Amino acid sequence: MSGRSRVDGGLALLGPQDTALLRLLDDTFRDWGVQAGAGEISAPPLYPVDALAHLDVYVNFPHLALVAGGLTTPTDGPAQGRFTTGQTADAHLGLSTATCFGAYLLLQDTRVAPDTLLTLVNRCFRKEDHFDGLRRLLSFQMREIVAIGTQAHTKAVIARFRERVEEFLTLLALDVRVEAATDPFFEAGGVRALLQKMEPVKYEFQVDGLAIASVNTHRNFFGERCRITVGDDGATAFTGCVAFGLERWLAVLLDHYGTAEKARTAVDQALRELGPG
Amino acid sequence: MSGRSRVDGGLALLGPQDTALLRLLDDTFRDWGVQAGAGEISAPPLYPVDALAHLDVYVNFPHLALVAGGLTTPTDGPAQGRFTTGQTADAHLGLSTATCFGAYLLLQDTRVAPDTLLTLVNRCFRKEDHFDGLRRLLSFQMREIVAIGTQAHTKAVIARFRERVEEFLTLLALDVRVEAATDPFFEAGGVRALLQKMEPVKYEFQVDGLAIASVNTHRNFFGERCRITVGDDGATAFTGCVAFGLERWLAVLLDHYGTAEKARTAVDQALRELGPG
Repeated sequence: MSGRSRVDGGLALLGPQDTALLRLLDDTFRDWGVQAGAGEISAPPLYPVDALAHLDVYVNFPHLALVAGGLTTPTDGPAQGRFTTGQTADAHLGLSTATCFGAYLLLQDTRVAPDTLLTLVNRCFRKEDHFDGLRRLLSFQMREIVAIGTQAHTKAVIARFRERVEEFLTLLALDVRVEAATDPFFEAGGVRALLQKMEPVKYEFQVDGLAIASVNTHRNFFGERCRITVGDDGATAFTGCVAFGLERWLAVLLDHYGTAEKARTAVDQALRELGPG
Repeated sequence: MSGRSRVDGGLALLGPQDTALLRLLDDTFRDWGVQAGAGEISAPPLYPVDALAHLDVYVNFPHLALVAGGLTTPTDGPAQGRFTTGQTADAHLGLSTATCFGAYLLLQDTRVAPDTLLTLVNRCFRKEDHFDGLRRLLSFQMREIVAIGTQAHTKAVIARFRERVEEFLTLLALDVRVEAATDPFFEAGGVRALLQKMEPVKYEFQVDGLAIASVNTHRNFFGERCRITVGDDGATAFTGCVAFGLERWLAVLLDHYGTAEKARTAVDQALRELGPG
């Protein structure tokens, strides 16, 4: 009874076995960050819409955005699965589409060490045009390891974790392709999209055509928007991140190993072979 | 720089020290649940509004509710911190005000063992009329231990954890008052409110006037709404829960011990004295 997960309409209720596998994966990626010197932080899963607008969220992917506000009270309940705009107040909160925003907002208006590393996990939300089991959810969990400081630091962190993720996936016997991708975050920007073709800023780790992790360089975009500086001369910080879509890892591991229990055994074994970072 | 937490407008960005304390607390309450036989599950922080309406959320506290939907695209960005209702679609999603809903929705339409115990942590959201640091947030984290089955089982679980929470708070040298309270969940219901005065269904653990945990009995309300049965005769399951407001624990521990590091030492010490459940 309580063992079975339920996934419907882009929302996942995970039973104990699947939850244990998800936690094992999250603890693994967190530990990789901590071993590399990351401090773990915590951030809310929504922000004032102005804060997200300032990061170009509503310019770059308005179609994915979900925004929230209160009800005009007294109100009737929802009808046909919806509160109409006549029943709702203006939306002052934006649900976060990615985890790493919290790191930049925590560091806003500060000067950071040249090799700053943070890790955090959060709920993320995307109004996709279709949902597909654990592979494509409306609400999902994303663990990130975020590098902030010099450009050299962000590149070194990304190189380190690109290698580590590939090794781990190989040890798990998953057939992975590493593909240069267009960061949806920069999709709509003409100049930035062009720059990206010249020098890819995002690589996805794809298993069965599903991107389960990615490494991303943002150059100094977030550093500039959040006024994060590095060093004595007040240079704008560069940022980069490594992102893990936890339910997507669950999906490919369950596909490959059949049960969450077998997948956990395989993950434990792969971690022993991988050794410390 | 990255050490400092930021709390503004009901939203908390926690630095590494505060995050480590929050994790220690969450791991502690989770372990208590697991030691008592709970399986850990995972649930999304929002649901279709119909699912929450079916649990009387919009009847009982419409003023606290936050609802979410997409944008009508193409759209301009937000103005004065808001997307107007002219820019937003109908709201089909409701942000969850409490963690335990996920347990009842996972078990919906099933028959459970008479002594079912689950634990889960989630983000919760309440549109309070004012916010106050970590003491009163719009978005916060709530760990719950949820008993589902016979009424005797729910009462035994609540008695066990009521005692354990009191002991733990005493070992932490926190001045706790256990107060019978009106469950906000049943606030508006005339008959239920009357029943509650006759037999309290909610006790709050208050430190400095702040409720940091509570034990709650729901009788067969959620069992009935979610069609959860127990035993061979198809009796409706009773439910009860133990809830921990993690940022509120952080607030009172930081107040009492001065720093997150000292508070962690005190928690570790208290756990050693408390021993296994």
